[in-house]
This record gives sequence, C-alpha cells and structure tokens, in this order.
Amino acid sequence: MAVIARLTGSSSQTEPNALDNLSSLCAIDMARVNQLIVDRMQSNVPLIPELAGHLVAAGGKRLRPLLTLSSARLCGYEGDKHIGLAAAVEFIHTATLLHDDVVDESELRRGRDTANAVWGNQASVLVGDFLFSRSFRLMVESESLRVLDILANASAVIAEGEVAQLITTNDTATTEEDYLFVIRSKTAALFAAACEVGALVANHSSAATEALEQYGANLGIAFQLVDDYLDYTAADESFGKGVGDDFREGKITLPVVLAMRRGTEDEHEFWKRTLERTEKQDGDLEKALEILNAREALSDTLIRARGYADTARAALTELPENEYRTALENVVDFCVERAY
Amino acid sequence: MAVIARLTGSSSQTEPNALDNLSSLCAIDMARVNQLIVDRMQSNVPLIPELAGHLVAAGGKRLRPLLTLSSARLCGYEGDKHIGLAAAVEFIHTATLLHDDVVDESELRRGRDTANAVWGNQASVLVGDFLFSRSFRLMVESESLRVLDILANASAVIAEGEVAQLITTNDTATTEEDYLFVIRSKTAALFAAACEVGALVANHSSAATEALEQYGANLGIAFQLVDDYLDYTAADESFGKGVGDDFREGKITLPVVLAMRRGTEDEHEFWKRTLERTEKQDGDLEKALEILNAREALSDTLIRARGYADTARAALTELPENEYRTALENVVDFCVERAY
Repeated sequence: MAVIARLTGSSSQTEPNALDNLSSLCAIDMARVNQLIVDRMQSNVPLIPELAGHLVAAGGKRLRPLLTLSSARLCGYEGDKHIGLAAAVEFIHTATLLHDDVVDESELRRGRDTANAVWGNQASVLVGDFLFSRSFRLMVESESLRVLDILANASAVIAEGEVAQLITTNDTATTEEDYLFVIRSKTAALFAAACEVGALVANHSSAATEALEQYGANLGIAFQLVDDYLDYTAADESFGKGVGDDFREGKITLPVVLAMRRGTEDEHEFWKRTLERTEKQDGDLEKALEILNAREALSDTLIRARGYADTARAALTELPENEYRTALENVVDFCVERAY
Repeated sequence: MAVIARLTGSSSQTEPNALDNLSSLCAIDMARVNQLIVDRMQSNVPLIPELAGHLVAAGGKRLRPLLTLSSARLCGYEGDKHIGLAAAVEFIHTATLLHDDVVDESELRRGRDTANAVWGNQASVLVGDFLFSRSFRLMVESESLRVLDILANASAVIAEGEVAQLITTNDTATTEEDYLFVIRSKTAALFAAACEVGALVANHSSAATEALEQYGANLGIAFQLVDDYLDYTAADESFGKGVGDDFREGKITLPVVLAMRRGTEDEHEFWKRTLERTEKQDGDLEKALEILNAREALSDTLIRARGYADTARAALTELPENEYRTALENVVDFCVERAY
C-alpha cells in the first residue's frame, strides 16, 4: 500500500466525530423525521418498505436532513414544517442512492449489500421512483411553492450531474471543470437546497437564506472532494464501501484529473489502459496510488476541499450567532477531518 | 397462428382512428404542449435531450396530455395553465416508459429501438429521473397545491403498480384482483390524474372534477385491458412492440389469469412451465393462443374492457354537452375499437 497523503499543519483538533454536536442538538426533531420516513415509505406493496427499509435501516449520517433541520432552527423557526422537508430531502437522497447503485452496479453501500444486489435492479429502480414521488408529496405539505420549486430543481440538477458523470466515466480527457460540474450537480445541489429550504420555512431574511444556500453548496463540494479522496485512501470498514471502487469502475475523479494533467507519457498510458480500455493487471491500484502521491494529486484534492470548506464557514458569518451556527461550523470540520 | 377471438355484435362503426377528433380539437393547444416538452427537456448535458428526444420524437398518441387539455376545455377553461400540466403529465409518462423498458429489458417501443437498447440502462434510468423532476417543476408553475398533490400521488401509485407487477411476474397464482391492482395503479392512476387536473385548473365544480377523474380511471383500465389483449393478438407493425412480449417475459395479464382459472391440469402445467419456470419450446406461443381461445380468455378480456369503457362513457353524462365531451366519448371507442 502506498503512503497516504497527509497535509502538514493540520487544522484544530476536533472531536472524534464533529457531526455529533449537530446530531445532539437536532435529536428531538430528527426522531420525528425518522418516524415520518418510516411512515411515508409504507405501501400496500410490501416489497417497497422492505427494500427502502434495508437502505434506511443501514443508517448513514442523515447529514442532509440535519442541514434542513438546523438551518430552520438557526433562523429561529418554531413551527414543524422543517420536519416534513427534512424527510423529503432524505427521500430524494435515498432514491438517488438506489438509482446510483443500479447505475454503478455497486454491491456494497454503508457496509451492507446494496438493494440491487439483494432484490435486483428492477425493484431498485421502481422503489427509487416511489421514494421520489413520496418526497414530492411531503414537499407539497409545506404549502410553499418556492420550496417545491427549489427541491424539484435540485432533483433535476442531480440527475443532470449523474448523466454528466456517466459521460465522463472512462474518459481520461475529463477536465477539472467537467469534474466540478459533476459534483456541483450530483452532490452540492442537494446540500444547498437542504439548507435553503430550512431557511425559507423560517422566513428569516433573504440574506440568511442566501447565506445558508451558499454554505450548503460549498460544504457539498468539499464533502464530495473528500469522498473522492477517501475512495483511494480509506480503510474499508470506516468508509462503508470498497476502497478503489472509483478506480475499478473507471470513474474520473479529481485525483485522476490532476494526475493526468501533471503526468508523464508513461503515466498517461497507464491511466488510459486502466480507466479507458479497462485492461486491468495485478498491482494496478497500488501503482495508481503511487502515481497519485508522486503527482500530489491526493493531497491537492484535500487542499481544494479545504478551500471550499473555508468558503462554507465564511458564509455562516452572515447568520445569527447561536448554537446551531456553531454546530454547522463543526459540520464543516467533520466533512474535511474525516480524511485524516 | 390460432384464430383470434372476435366479439360478435361489434359496436357501432367508428372512424379508422377515433382519436383524430380529439387531436384535431386540441391541435392548437397540443402544438404549445409539444413546444414546451422540447423546451423543458433541454439541458447542459446534451445526452439528456438526445435520449429523451428519441422517445418523444417517436410520437406516440399523446393520449394523456390530450386528456388534460380536453378536460380543461370541456369545463370551459380559457387560461393557459393546462398547457404546462399536459406537458407535466407527458413527462411523467415518458419517464415511466424509460424506466419500464429498463425493468422489462425491452428492445422495441413505438416501433423503434428502446432508449436502453441504444444508450444503455444507466442513461435511461437517469434521464427518466431528470424528466420526473422536470415534470414537478412544470406542475409547480400551475401554482396549485391540489394539482401538485394529485400528480405526486399518481406518480407514487404508478411506481407501486410497477413493483406489484414485478412481483406477479412469473407467478401463475396471480388473481384477477392482483391484476386489477396492478393496472389500476400503473395505468389508470395517470389517466385519472390527467383528467382531474385538467378539470381542476378550470375550477368548474367538484362534481365535474370527480366525473372526469372517474372517466379517466375507467378509461385507463379499459385501455390497459385492450393493450394486454393486443399483446397476444396484434399484428406486429400496428402495435409498435413485439407480439407475445408479455408471454415471453412471463408477465401475468388477464388473459392468462382467466385461462389459469378455467384450465385443465395439463393447461396449468403448460402455464407453469412457460411462465414460471420459463422453459420455452418451439410452438409455445401458438399453443398459448390456442388455450386462451379455448378458454375464451381473450374474448372475455375484451368484454371486461367494454364494461369499463361503458362506465367511462357514463361518467361523461354528468358534464356539459359540448364538442370536447363528444371527443372524449370517441376516445372511449378508440381505446376499445383498436382491438378490432
């Protein structure tokens, strides 16, 4: 195994899991969201809650609904519309994961077999559609056309990002700009919308809504950059999916984009063989890590992530100072620090 | 080829295509819908309009958006919100077709290669998601939460029906009730919603809205019954997909349900071998048609269709008498007469 890139002068020490602060603060709200999620995935067709429940029960961080809940609370919201919206956001995310795993032919998610591996692609596609539709019903209950428009738009943008990712797969000519379009769309759009709709139901100020949308968008980019870094470096158990998955699937993430840009002719040929022509040999992943480290592609991916994390943190300064704001600052640390 | 069931005492002669009347009446509205469909399937990711356009350009009857347009007009609507809703309804339908073809592994749709056959399952899943999301944005523009709720609910019900269909596939113990649940959900729910939202924007009366919803629901069931009849009997070219597809895919439709219920032990064994264990032999489709005719399963499927068609027609009597109502009556004939 090659040496894993580490940044020197690492940031302030954080708790083992800086997401815990946010989770604790939102615990009562989140319990209501979890109940609503279970209620709304019910159906007369038992396979639907069974399949959806498999993924939901596997846990996950519930980061996106936490963003909706805390954005609303940060803005002083005292009502309960944020509960339904947080559930809607999680449903959109879950539907996306179900369809993603079909598209990627993945077998492992959150440390468990994927739904498509257990029930087949067909059921995963259809249950994803069901959850999408149920998420829209939840949004309708917010009675806010603005909220509906934001989340419907985010859903369309996610799909665009996923298609764009499909196109860049196996294409080593993918640029950093192409890559950024993909992750802004497939990941950051939902982070941004999750925060924005939380602020909107609170009806605080358009400046606060915009600041939270900016926070979410930048946090989402940082989060995906770290995810793509971890795909090459994480220990299997902590990451919940296979290490080197992106490499095996020919997905072109920023580490590869940077290594291609900075590489020798021989290295270009290595990436083309392994990622474009997918002619794999023993030791390829180790060789890939060696090149990625030599080209500082992994460490620079993290530096990019820290840049977006800083922008996310800066957006919060526009907002009221309260415990929710502090928790959202900690989330930024969580997203970046999980790389260490 | 076995003799195809024909009902004696066939109904009144209709024009070669009784849908033409409705199409002509709604031609100006429909041109706007078609333009909106093209506009709203655009994306920065060129593969999306390319793939969606393949299916949209193949035409199809545009029956569902025509139902929305004519329901609104029948109720005296003079605004233009029905245009966006008709486009939304067609987007939901198109997204469903894209996902259906992935689920069924179909290769032919509307007489052309399916999108999944050309671009692969992955792109079809994601472009379907994109169209779903865009359909919700179109609905939001109607600014009616009631409309949004009806169409979001219909989408969830469609997905439930598709999952239920997946479960009944290869299961010869499927009952007529199971089958009706599937077609009510996967087909009739969108027909009903298409009519209902047309009436709703017109804001005529709750009786009119309910009558049109009932019309749509019953028309949808009749339509699917005839579709399932045609799958065993139609000439290849006119139907736009392969004849015997349901039989080959092990889909359990009403003709098989009736034949199972009325069949001998030997016939049960034939259906179990061909549809459950999918051990196929030469001449199986011909043998299937022979049994279906002997058990009057095809002719009785059509009789059931005529029953629902009558109920659909009766629902219209509650509504204002005008040219749109007449055209909707003709649509009922179209749905049933295409079996002859």
